[in-house]
Amino acid sequence: MDQTQDAAPPRASRDLAVELDAKDPLASFRDRFVADDPALVYFDGNSLGRLPSATQERLATVVAREWGQRLIRSWDEGWMSLPVRVGDRLGRVALGADAGQVVVADSTTVCLYKLVNAALDARPGRDEIVVEANDFPTDRYVVDGVAARHGCTVRQVVADPITGPTPDDIAAAVGSRTAVVLLSHVSYRSSAIADMAAINDVAHRAGALTLWDLSHSVGSIPVALDAAGSDLATGCSYKYLNGGPGAPAFLYVRRDLQTTVRQPIWGWIGHRDPFAMGPRYAPAQDIRGMVSGTPPILGLTGVDIGVGLLEDAGIAAIRTKGMALTDFAIDCYDAGLAPLGFELASPRDATVRGAHISLRHADARRLSAELIDREVIPDFRTPDLIRIGLSPLTTRFTDVWDGLEVLRGLAT
Amino acid sequence: MDQTQDAAPPRASRDLAVELDAKDPLASFRDRFVADDPALVYFDGNSLGRLPSATQERLATVVAREWGQRLIRSWDEGWMSLPVRVGDRLGRVALGADAGQVVVADSTTVCLYKLVNAALDARPGRDEIVVEANDFPTDRYVVDGVAARHGCTVRQVVADPITGPTPDDIAAAVGSRTAVVLLSHVSYRSSAIADMAAINDVAHRAGALTLWDLSHSVGSIPVALDAAGSDLATGCSYKYLNGGPGAPAFLYVRRDLQTTVRQPIWGWIGHRDPFAMGPRYAPAQDIRGMVSGTPPILGLTGVDIGVGLLEDAGIAAIRTKGMALTDFAIDCYDAGLAPLGFELASPRDATVRGAHISLRHADARRLSAELIDREVIPDFRTPDLIRIGLSPLTTRFTDVWDGLEVLRGLAT
Repeated sequence: MDQTQDAAPPRASRDLAVELDAKDPLASFRDRFVADDPALVYFDGNSLGRLPSATQERLATVVAREWGQRLIRSWDEGWMSLPVRVGDRLGRVALGADAGQVVVADSTTVCLYKLVNAALDARPGRDEIVVEANDFPTDRYVVDGVAARHGCTVRQVVADPITGPTPDDIAAAVGSRTAVVLLSHVSYRSSAIADMAAINDVAHRAGALTLWDLSHSVGSIPVALDAAGSDLATGCSYKYLNGGPGAPAFLYVRRDLQTTVRQPIWGWIGHRDPFAMGPRYAPAQDIRGMVSGTPPILGLTGVDIGVGLLEDAGIAAIRTKGMALTDFAIDCYDAGLAPLGFELASPRDATVRGAHISLRHADARRLSAELIDREVIPDFRTPDLIRIGLSPLTTRFTDVWDGLEVLRGLAT
Repeated sequence: MDQTQDAAPPRASRDLAVELDAKDPLASFRDRFVADDPALVYFDGNSLGRLPSATQERLATVVAREWGQRLIRSWDEGWMSLPVRVGDRLGRVALGADAGQVVVADSTTVCLYKLVNAALDARPGRDEIVVEANDFPTDRYVVDGVAARHGCTVRQVVADPITGPTPDDIAAAVGSRTAVVLLSHVSYRSSAIADMAAINDVAHRAGALTLWDLSHSVGSIPVALDAAGSDLATGCSYKYLNGGPGAPAFLYVRRDLQTTVRQPIWGWIGHRDPFAMGPRYAPAQDIRGMVSGTPPILGLTGVDIGVGLLEDAGIAAIRTKGMALTDFAIDCYDAGLAPLGFELASPRDATVRGAHISLRHADARRLSAELIDREVIPDFRTPDLIRIGLSPLTTRFTDVWDGLEVLRGLAT
């Protein structure tokens, strides 16, 4: 090793990983999850987050006491308001949203559908929806479905696959026909963070609304919906929020839009007075008007506990660790994987990168399967990406080292 | 007591209730639920069914092992197919539906929305939806929402409040403009069972489709969707199915409609090949094409266990007990409540009545609240109905007697 290298930052190594874990202020959070699987390296907390121990306990209580003992009375004793209470807490802790603008309900797909329709309603006379050509399939499919039904045009922005859509990309796409711009805040592929405030400005200058998919940002990076002037947003709760498999999504509608936008799926739970059961639907004039059917209480319970963990850790500390984990993963890549045919498919600058990185490799599909056989669990994303999710509350630096070492061994 | 009365069927009494419980072939099923609340009379199993002990155990396993240990791998190890597997089982056990026509997904409201839209698509050129004027609010609201967006007309059938809509009522309402007739199979108010086969015939002769809301029939009376020639159906899983608070609904699409109807909420889970993540949405050509977002695994688990209990008990035995329980409740009403200002708001003929009865009373709201204070839990339905739900797997004849005796005391 020559002098130049010695003077550089310490090279990625297992010793360095151990040292980083020892200094990690969030290290103890891993003990608050069920994570007693020493052989497993889990790089998929951005697809299904780990199980918080408190969720296991709380679910048992909700089931045994609230459902089993209190039965229907539990609707009055807290369940009915749970979607808005959890939404408020999530808004405060992770979304930069004041109370009364977030509610937890339905799947992300259904929430996207409601919000795209709501946006079209709010911009009558406009018939164009702008999306990113390589955004997550559901986002594109939902928009195609709405467009097919409404006779709208979908305008696909082709962005750089690493940096994602820039304000200039969006400025070139929006116009007087644009009703809404739907974008992921953090790219599910490259992990690039879109410039939310600047893109909001660009869209607003064209008279369009913005709809943000926060699935890969919520719980991993701070989101500032109010401050950035965002209009609408939604996202998953089962990734970095650790809400559990198929837990309900959340949606956000900026307060001053709430009395003008309407969602298309009218159910009694979104009615101003659900138990009046009157002849006509009259939506609640607040965020509850976005809800349709009976709230899924077990899933909501998981989301509530997940938000509580974010609250305890603090989103700033989570962000700091997410940047350090992905930096360390890139150091491992530079040292061991770049020479073996891998290519970094994520931004190098941690400030514009979420809590995962993607590595491109011609044999990504085979390598992903072989990793899983060796209890290292990434996500394969077609056609050639291995996605390494580094959930700050549960991933250790030694996990990064160990998992990428297994990958190096497989590719050598 | 005179001779004539002595020769009549035995009068409702607590002794008779005890005797009926002793002879009840389903009596032991109550032990398979968490129901160790001797002071409680629960007349609301048709709103939130009780907790099966097996659900408590199974949920703990799903959470601890499938989520906690297997993590994302569980999607391949059973979760992905769970909506269709539970749907098939439910279809066979309770809906009279062959495999491949039922899937569990979303709330009942969202399922209704999908199916109303699908029906309109399948009947191009038709712009009228027929509903019953006093059907459950969500059913009417959903249709109003769809109609507002599509420029359709909603035709409300005003049916007799006790017997519900008859085939003649529907025949008078449908015509060449009718796309779909949406009706509840069992009225949430009177408990009347609609003549599904005859109404399907009437609708089909007019070229319309039928969409059945089975929320109050599934798990309480046999449903014969295939044999009756039904087109579309949906329903709740948290009533007589005991799936848990906010558990996902199910939906049915007759097999030969599956390649022609499309639902409007396009998500990756309903795609022919979800993991291809291709540029265009191409719906699965089977019942999975009705699904949108990620399946709610905890809720689905509850539905699965609930269906298993129906399977063990047999829907025929459940139906027999449901008729006996409601007959007994009406005997109690005749003897003790009719003289006190109550009026039976349900059919007297058990063969056209589901597993609840409704009693009309000028002070129904106050009486319902006072019943709840005394741990007798009915449903109040505005403006003047006390609804007595008698879930055959968990309600005892002594519950009926005891609960209605408390009501008699309150009204005396």
